[in-house]
Amino acid sequence: LPAVLKKRRNSYDGRGNATVHVPEELPSAWAKLEGDSNPLYVEEFCPFTMELATILTRGRGGEVVRFPVVETVNREHICHVVKAPASVPPETARAVSDLAERAVASIGGVGSFGMELFLCDDGRLLVNEIAPRVHNTGHYTIEACLTSQFENHVRAVLGWPLGSAEMVAPAAAMVNLLGFGDGSGVPLGLAEALGVEGAHVHVYGKSRSARGRKMGHVTALGRTPEEAHRIAQRAADLIRFGGEA
Amino acid sequence: LPAVLKKRRNSYDGRGNATVHVPEELPSAWAKLEGDSNPLYVEEFCPFTMELATILTRGRGGEVVRFPVVETVNREHICHVVKAPASVPPETARAVSDLAERAVASIGGVGSFGMELFLCDDGRLLVNEIAPRVHNTGHYTIEACLTSQFENHVRAVLGWPLGSAEMVAPAAAMVNLLGFGDGSGVPLGLAEALGVEGAHVHVYGKSRSARGRKMGHVTALGRTPEEAHRIAQRAADLIRFGGEA
Repeated sequence: LPAVLKKRRNSYDGRGNATVHVPEELPSAWAKLEGDSNPLYVEEFCPFTMELATILTRGRGGEVVRFPVVETVNREHICHVVKAPASVPPETARAVSDLAERAVASIGGVGSFGMELFLCDDGRLLVNEIAPRVHNTGHYTIEACLTSQFENHVRAVLGWPLGSAEMVAPAAAMVNLLGFGDGSGVPLGLAEALGVEGAHVHVYGKSRSARGRKMGHVTALGRTPEEAHRIAQRAADLIRFGGEA
Repeated sequence: LPAVLKKRRNSYDGRGNATVHVPEELPSAWAKLEGDSNPLYVEEFCPFTMELATILTRGRGGEVVRFPVVETVNREHICHVVKAPASVPPETARAVSDLAERAVASIGGVGSFGMELFLCDDGRLLVNEIAPRVHNTGHYTIEACLTSQFENHVRAVLGWPLGSAEMVAPAAAMVNLLGFGDGSGVPLGLAEALGVEGAHVHVYGKSRSARGRKMGHVTALGRTPEEAHRIAQRAADLIRFGGEA
């Protein structure tokens, strides 16, 4: 201990897991995850310095395009902010991309894949999630890269040449727009958010909002990830989905 | 003389006009434009140094966003290449945008407008076309500007704040993909063109190709308009719509 209990299925965005610090917490964790009816697994808790992620597109012929390695900031187990590129040494970024490439190649994957990792306090890189598809942590590539994770996914599946993942600005950031509570999928404050210069606001058009549900995101470019984050956050803070008006 | 005869309606992309250098050419020009059944008008031929264009978005409250002034290269009266920004002094670019703003404001226009102009040998700016909509000469803004002409059009019409038209790269270029002849709207050479790094290939999905018909375009970013043009042209040259295989 500490350890993390997880459901084998339907665990995402903070659902389906529970951290156990002392043995006395085990019964309530087991009950929360309905362990009597769901197969669970247990993992060592990993003290980490930073959470990282990357997108990688692998073509039919095995060729690979590596998108930048990014830093993700999670709150309550949900991704809130992505900063590109991550403030890590080049060898760390290369190790992340090497790991992602080996993982995707090992299953003969074709298309865009997302990978999330912990950079542990002892320097180890531990893979947290591999998504066999375009991923939330790669949405910033729409504006920030010469080719987005979406376009490269289509190119890969169709057997077309992959496009460059080079960034068009020194840095970028993405802030998720999470539902505040039950309500409409049409946001309040959209016009105000569009008034923030340089903010690219994306609304997914989901019919209903729920607390913590991903309803959209805001991307901004900048000279540094921090500058980009400030712009995107300013716009995101003006938008609200659901909850009482 | 020389003068240009034009149809009052349905003149675009080189259709519906005829240049008359000597009086003897008048009967054939009249016949070509079916002057007996179509109202025509006549204009002085303008010897020009360069063809320019710009996009301007005007909001409901009269606020205006000026996109860069670009150089257009036409062949057979059809736009082939757009280079952004145009290699003109800042005061010329400002005069173009001033002209466009006055023109759109004079009709109370709301949305994105395209304007094409001649920079005459004597330094005058003559407006050639005002398009009350997004325009071919502004397609480069999808990749090259913080906000595209399309997004700003929607923002304007909905009464939302307009987005910045600042370029994300020092320069950009767009090359039109024109039909080579009658045939399918599905191009040959698409995979090869996608292999050109930095080329953004757009195919419009028209069902049929015809000679000179706009079937798509390629945009590239660069450090200079010439560098961007080389990349876009290299991809465009690999694509063909219609004609014999």
